[in-house]
Amino acid sequence: MAGLLRAVVPAESDTPLTRLSGGPGGPGALTPMLRTVLGALAEGAERRGGPLPAGSPAQLAADVARVFAEADGDGALHKLTDVLAYGSADPADPSCAAHLHCPPLAVAVAADLAVSALNPSQDSWDQAPAATALETLLLQELAQLVGYDPNEAAGVLTSGGTESNLMGLMLARDRVIGQDSGRQIELSGLPGTGRRARIFTSEAAHFSVQRSAALLGLGEDAVVPVPVDDQLRMRPDALATALRDCVRRGELPLAVVATAGTTDTGAIDPLRTCASLSAEYGAWLHVDAAYGGGALLSEQLAPLMAGVALADSVSLDWHKLGWQPVAAGIFLVKRAETYASLARRAVYLNPQDDEEAGYPSLLGLSLRTTRRTDAFKIAVTLRTLGRDGLGRLVDACHALARSGTEAVRAHPNLELHADPVLTAFLFRYLPESPRNIDPERVDRINAGLRRRLLREGRAVVGRTELPGEGPGRVRLKLTLLNPHATPAEVERLLDAVVAAGRAEEEL
Amino acid sequence: MAGLLRAVVPAESDTPLTRLSGGPGGPGALTPMLRTVLGALAEGAERRGGPLPAGSPAQLAADVARVFAEADGDGALHKLTDVLAYGSADPADPSCAAHLHCPPLAVAVAADLAVSALNPSQDSWDQAPAATALETLLLQELAQLVGYDPNEAAGVLTSGGTESNLMGLMLARDRVIGQDSGRQIELSGLPGTGRRARIFTSEAAHFSVQRSAALLGLGEDAVVPVPVDDQLRMRPDALATALRDCVRRGELPLAVVATAGTTDTGAIDPLRTCASLSAEYGAWLHVDAAYGGGALLSEQLAPLMAGVALADSVSLDWHKLGWQPVAAGIFLVKRAETYASLARRAVYLNPQDDEEAGYPSLLGLSLRTTRRTDAFKIAVTLRTLGRDGLGRLVDACHALARSGTEAVRAHPNLELHADPVLTAFLFRYLPESPRNIDPERVDRINAGLRRRLLREGRAVVGRTELPGEGPGRVRLKLTLLNPHATPAEVERLLDAVVAAGRAEEEL
Repeated sequence: MAGLLRAVVPAESDTPLTRLSGGPGGPGALTPMLRTVLGALAEGAERRGGPLPAGSPAQLAADVARVFAEADGDGALHKLTDVLAYGSADPADPSCAAHLHCPPLAVAVAADLAVSALNPSQDSWDQAPAATALETLLLQELAQLVGYDPNEAAGVLTSGGTESNLMGLMLARDRVIGQDSGRQIELSGLPGTGRRARIFTSEAAHFSVQRSAALLGLGEDAVVPVPVDDQLRMRPDALATALRDCVRRGELPLAVVATAGTTDTGAIDPLRTCASLSAEYGAWLHVDAAYGGGALLSEQLAPLMAGVALADSVSLDWHKLGWQPVAAGIFLVKRAETYASLARRAVYLNPQDDEEAGYPSLLGLSLRTTRRTDAFKIAVTLRTLGRDGLGRLVDACHALARSGTEAVRAHPNLELHADPVLTAFLFRYLPESPRNIDPERVDRINAGLRRRLLREGRAVVGRTELPGEGPGRVRLKLTLLNPHATPAEVERLLDAVVAAGRAEEEL
Repeated sequence: MAGLLRAVVPAESDTPLTRLSGGPGGPGALTPMLRTVLGALAEGAERRGGPLPAGSPAQLAADVARVFAEADGDGALHKLTDVLAYGSADPADPSCAAHLHCPPLAVAVAADLAVSALNPSQDSWDQAPAATALETLLLQELAQLVGYDPNEAAGVLTSGGTESNLMGLMLARDRVIGQDSGRQIELSGLPGTGRRARIFTSEAAHFSVQRSAALLGLGEDAVVPVPVDDQLRMRPDALATALRDCVRRGELPLAVVATAGTTDTGAIDPLRTCASLSAEYGAWLHVDAAYGGGALLSEQLAPLMAGVALADSVSLDWHKLGWQPVAAGIFLVKRAETYASLARRAVYLNPQDDEEAGYPSLLGLSLRTTRRTDAFKIAVTLRTLGRDGLGRLVDACHALARSGTEAVRAHPNLELHADPVLTAFLFRYLPESPRNIDPERVDRINAGLRRRLLREGRAVVGRTELPGEGPGRVRLKLTLLNPHATPAEVERLLDAVVAAGRAEEEL
């Protein structure tokens, strides 16, 4: 595969290694190097021969260390790319289905090359003239997709749901303590309120809610975990009770974080109820739609997201159900005027007179300063496939998940947790007999079979635990994000799970 | 240029647009699309014909909006890449020299393609087996470069200096308030101390210090700006006084943030003195070496960084003086045990039994969850060119800055601020006569000439203001990061500045 690409321009074998990717010579400098990368990707993948390399993490780390120590000069690009490809868990392999870790579309990856080569940075217009305009246009379109009025909304590209959730909670906090107050947060009560702040989110919500609360100085225990139903959706009655109790204790209900697509099961909280309760208690509503946002692309699944437009802010991640290479996070707010706490004048980036002269600045929209143009690959993908084309990919993954759950149901050794909402489902292996086996042993077998599949290089299956305490909560997970995988391939993956389960039982 | 790359594999014209970048078919799917991108990059750059497109931001935004509205199907990749390239401020052009916005090396960009195509995510081993090992190895090498003991240090790749500075200040805060306390911060005093926290940084430090303090709930006014000398370095006596006054007021000196390479002038604070004062007052020392870290690569300039190894934590940015595409930020701590406040167990990412079975996890090192393998391009670049090869690029840019300042000094209409420390310097245009002209008018002329150069598509020159109050503080800036630019090209850029200044004078 080393000859996969051939230069039409003169041979570049004498090219110094210090050539740049930009300028008139950039494409010519890149040509032989991209050929090297494509060849090494193909060779490494062939050598891997499956969803991930067989062996232990220590063995792989030793291989990587050897290559890292030995690679030098113009051979380094090939050797290191080869070992990266060999040592990848490739989400394009139908047996790699553990995480919200999608196989990117080739067109998105190609678009991202343009961004690397030109290296725009979104923190000032004069580092990203066209990219500034393009990000603004894309965000307006995404705001419409969510159901916001694009003339009232605002947003920014982020590194992912964790950063987007942090931003939502930061705006919720700053709305209360004042945007430019510079005041330190009080334990005894937020400045301006004298009350302890609380954030409400379901037990099945992403851990970034707690992490954000800690980072923001609110403390992890500001987060009140709201009980879930058996589908792992937030229980409306439990949220109502939690909010009522909060106010009764004299505390401040700062924010509700509803999840539209939990990491493990794709569960979608009751968004309309969350919105009405948030409004009733004056809490900011942030919807973490990092996963479920993909449903907005599908005619069939979009109704699941009804109510998302009522949120004050939303997280979307197109590197989950959107086939983009990382990072493709999006943070949107419904009303641009609520987005003031990051506004910032840096004399070297967005002086007042430049803005008055018509030079726009995205600096005040992001927690970051230097910022890659992640909007570009999303814009190219959206225009290449259209919302319809992307929706068909979402539908294909949803159908795959449905066929996977049917296969689980049909297998005597597999136990399904629940039907898929989006493209993921939980299940577990149950030993042959006795069925009333020690739940700790079932947990051990399931955790063990997953590691066995990894060690043998056969499959990358997810593993998680149901909310609650005590043994018997370990579950396996398939997150199906490869629209080209077939039901037969998912069945073979489940067969591999069962075979590994039997092998673990015999230990 | 459309035929720049030619496939050896069969023609891909019938390729569906939904092909993936991974798997055995990935390189074949990418081939025709990369050819399209390289062709469009060349065409767009040729149409631009200079460092940035001529015209107003509104004109360019209209062009972008038209292409974004019209592009669809398999033509979208070409059309959008073309307009992105046309509408770029290309740091590979010698007349694009405003910001810490480097022209990437082709080899780094090619390496980054492998990351996009394979899409590893650093938040769990089973999304990034080889990439987890490689990031760990790279960080050990970078820790050594800083002067840390690699067996005691720890770190992570970040989105840039802003995130790295936030992490340093978060660790400083959490060391005091307790890592898992979950306690909300108090206005009247941090939990565990009962005292108001203060952060000391120079007046010329990056605004991300204030932004971080606000995000962390400490309040922007927790930051005490320490006066600088005429080279914009923190004054040691002023830091000593500020720390003494803080303690006298009963407040807590939480952290000192020293800058090694300010954004505007590359000024390096007295690191050893900052370290001894931090130690004396029990404050965390964070060194923001986002820019100056590049000096560590150069034999000639590395002595400027003496004392950096005394810091508790350090920010480096290889997308500044390191020729990487964004993002290539690095955060390092001297002692891994101080890095506990992000430690986190997520049952779906790093269960205890997996870690006991030898599966490493980088999750607890980052503020993010999903995280691109930015380590890869840095590792490839380091091995391709070696520290020496990169050091020669740093030296070339430093020499260019020195020749640039000589040219400024020699020109009767230009006033130099100070000799370059690294690769940037400030200066301004002074009108012909009278020399004792109204300082507000001088500011207006300099700001205006910069916008004129942008509008004419002739140059991207930086603009900032010296610390302090009142008019007469606007300065122009050259940040020279293109190692292949020549002194003659910098002189032509300065001639263009003078010509634009004269045109502004005549308004």
